[in-house]
Amino acid sequence: MNEKLMKEDLKYIFHPCTQMKDHEKIPLIPIKKGKGAYIYDFDGNVYLDCISSWWVNLFGHSNDYINSKIKEQIEELEHVIFAGFTHKPAIDLARRLVNITPEGLEKVFFADNGSSAIEIALKMSFQYFKNRGESRPLFVSLENSYHGETMGALAISDNGLYKEVYSDILLKTIQAKSPSLVDEDEAINDMRNILKKHKGKIASVVIEPLVQCAGSMKMYNPSYITKLRALCDEMKVFLIADEIAVGFGRTGSMFACEQAGISPDFLCLSKGITGGYMPLSAVLFTEDIYDAFYCDYNEGKSFLDSHSYTGNTLACAVANAVLDIFEKENVIEKNREKIKLISELTKSLANLNNVKEVRQRGMICAIELQGYAPEKRIGLKFFQEALKEGVYIRPLGNIIYFMPPYIITNEEIKKMVGVVEKLLHIM
Amino acid sequence: MNEKLMKEDLKYIFHPCTQMKDHEKIPLIPIKKGKGAYIYDFDGNVYLDCISSWWVNLFGHSNDYINSKIKEQIEELEHVIFAGFTHKPAIDLARRLVNITPEGLEKVFFADNGSSAIEIALKMSFQYFKNRGESRPLFVSLENSYHGETMGALAISDNGLYKEVYSDILLKTIQAKSPSLVDEDEAINDMRNILKKHKGKIASVVIEPLVQCAGSMKMYNPSYITKLRALCDEMKVFLIADEIAVGFGRTGSMFACEQAGISPDFLCLSKGITGGYMPLSAVLFTEDIYDAFYCDYNEGKSFLDSHSYTGNTLACAVANAVLDIFEKENVIEKNREKIKLISELTKSLANLNNVKEVRQRGMICAIELQGYAPEKRIGLKFFQEALKEGVYIRPLGNIIYFMPPYIITNEEIKKMVGVVEKLLHIM
Repeated sequence: MNEKLMKEDLKYIFHPCTQMKDHEKIPLIPIKKGKGAYIYDFDGNVYLDCISSWWVNLFGHSNDYINSKIKEQIEELEHVIFAGFTHKPAIDLARRLVNITPEGLEKVFFADNGSSAIEIALKMSFQYFKNRGESRPLFVSLENSYHGETMGALAISDNGLYKEVYSDILLKTIQAKSPSLVDEDEAINDMRNILKKHKGKIASVVIEPLVQCAGSMKMYNPSYITKLRALCDEMKVFLIADEIAVGFGRTGSMFACEQAGISPDFLCLSKGITGGYMPLSAVLFTEDIYDAFYCDYNEGKSFLDSHSYTGNTLACAVANAVLDIFEKENVIEKNREKIKLISELTKSLANLNNVKEVRQRGMICAIELQGYAPEKRIGLKFFQEALKEGVYIRPLGNIIYFMPPYIITNEEIKKMVGVVEKLLHIM
Repeated sequence: MNEKLMKEDLKYIFHPCTQMKDHEKIPLIPIKKGKGAYIYDFDGNVYLDCISSWWVNLFGHSNDYINSKIKEQIEELEHVIFAGFTHKPAIDLARRLVNITPEGLEKVFFADNGSSAIEIALKMSFQYFKNRGESRPLFVSLENSYHGETMGALAISDNGLYKEVYSDILLKTIQAKSPSLVDEDEAINDMRNILKKHKGKIASVVIEPLVQCAGSMKMYNPSYITKLRALCDEMKVFLIADEIAVGFGRTGSMFACEQAGISPDFLCLSKGITGGYMPLSAVLFTEDIYDAFYCDYNEGKSFLDSHSYTGNTLACAVANAVLDIFEKENVIEKNREKIKLISELTKSLANLNNVKEVRQRGMICAIELQGYAPEKRIGLKFFQEALKEGVYIRPLGNIIYFMPPYIITNEEIKKMVGVVEKLLHIM
């Protein structure tokens, strides 16, 4: 049955982030069912979803509580236009997001995916200055960053693989040295030099706080963010925190910025916001930014962004269910034990000859391999071998990483790390 | 209760496409419930949703059949990563989309919203040539067009209101004369001149077939599209059909391109695809385009676009339910009678002094007003007065339009047109 469905799929579908020719050799796996931390294919195989289905799932597949809330919501209202109208799930969600995110983030703009959230933050930061008569067409991000796929989000990313081919049609942006790759002071000095050199021309600085996930799971310390916040204040540019991947508990705190004790001017959220159920994103920002667009209609300073499904009722209801679970089950606290266990189990792997580094930030743990030529695609081999053992990982090149759903048990954590450890010894 | 929720909303939420200051005077309406063609607020008021909640709803709010399919799906699988894995709802949807769209569109790439679909078509059309060693950094669209909000989609739009403020950060694109504004031959000649002048530099031409919805519901004939198809073939550039708003029966046929008897190279779909339930979009394209990205991984010609929720299982299941309804209930056929009724009821309105034109294409009917100064915001007044009569419309400037869900009854159509007719006489 797997094979039949795979063939049917390959007739019609171009999959994301995939060289389709790979599927001549690597089976595409049709999933029939998901429950808890497991996904089940059509041939009876079961896989532990150790990367939360691309970093989105928090409380397991087909979660009973979230399902019950969906059933309730669709009987009432599935969706309504969000211009001129509103609904309770969005109001509740907005209030709750404002309450749990760093201080000063007072307003919420909804969208459908992470890329769209980034685009909104970029456009708003640019238009903020435009509304005051300034043109600031420059954006600064970090080397090794990834912020999404749409042309604005891609323009501020620094992932050669995704971006290079499009360089002729992308806005030119500036990448500062990343604290994940160089010394923190060197990184902040580089940022200072850039902000000075282009003073008055830069609208915003965009970072992925603590972990550059798509950028090989490279990590850095909160102290950089604290310094960067001060620098952005000093230079009067906005700080956009892209917590699309790291938000909602991934780094150990509810939001990564908390660890730096700062508030960004814009906070972009998505992925975990719906616990892995469906697309939704949100951009939070300050009252000051909101006010810059608040004026008589005829002044023409409105922020007119919209997507058809902005503030989708069903998605907001799901996000509220996710926040319910965070509250009721004291998730951040409970994750600490799991984080510690992952740390204990993986620490010694750093001593292996084929391991360059083991790094961890909260519920994200990466094992960087060494000694394999890129064309060997060692990550792909780990994926295939681990899958045979019922463990689903999706290495980024030679980086094996774990980013499991928070409902993962200690036993499952041991299995997850154990399978990779075994493979590290034989591959 | 409306008032209390409105205040709570305004504390936290920045609404799409809205000057928030307007809500000092115009109440923001919290919707409690939707059923069929109606939405219900918290004070017991009921409104006929005559614009399908921003052109997305097809078969009514809280549709029993769609609800039943959602309940089934979430018990099985809500979502799974769509790289390396697949699922039956996506396979079924892709096959069905390929079967019902114009011939030659053989492959499907999923995304989350219309803007993201446009970005994918733009990037793919650009990279197609890049993979063959050509750089074609130009895109052509029509004057008065609208294609979305992310920076690529916005760059090819020609809606001053949305785009002008961002001109310093948007890719420069070319707008050809639109057949909705000038004579068809003049428009096609202008396009020919542009394609000739920039030969070898243009990747694709993007149009909204038949109706430029956000562009004041301006309409044009299928014959332009037929001619444009021939011209794009002759000049060897791709034709992208943005049927995000006009697809799924809006113009009377399942897809607007059918009326021109042509197939585009890329077809972008969203909005109605989920019947108004939740975000999803799809880009269909030809085998030839697919093949341009199909090669050994190490050649580096992959199309690496991805969003976390690409191919979202729940959204695909909803889209399949929508297609079930189209099939089972013979919707396109049944709409003909409704289209005729709307036509009969609105025809005479063109004789009124304050009406410049009545135009209709299938289930889209627009009444263009005249003699009102822009600063009077006459559309807004129509919105407010119609709402008092239980009819929800959302004029675009001085264009009143109807774009009702397909389940609207003859009686409801009469009420919808009747209320506007009454207002035309007194405003």
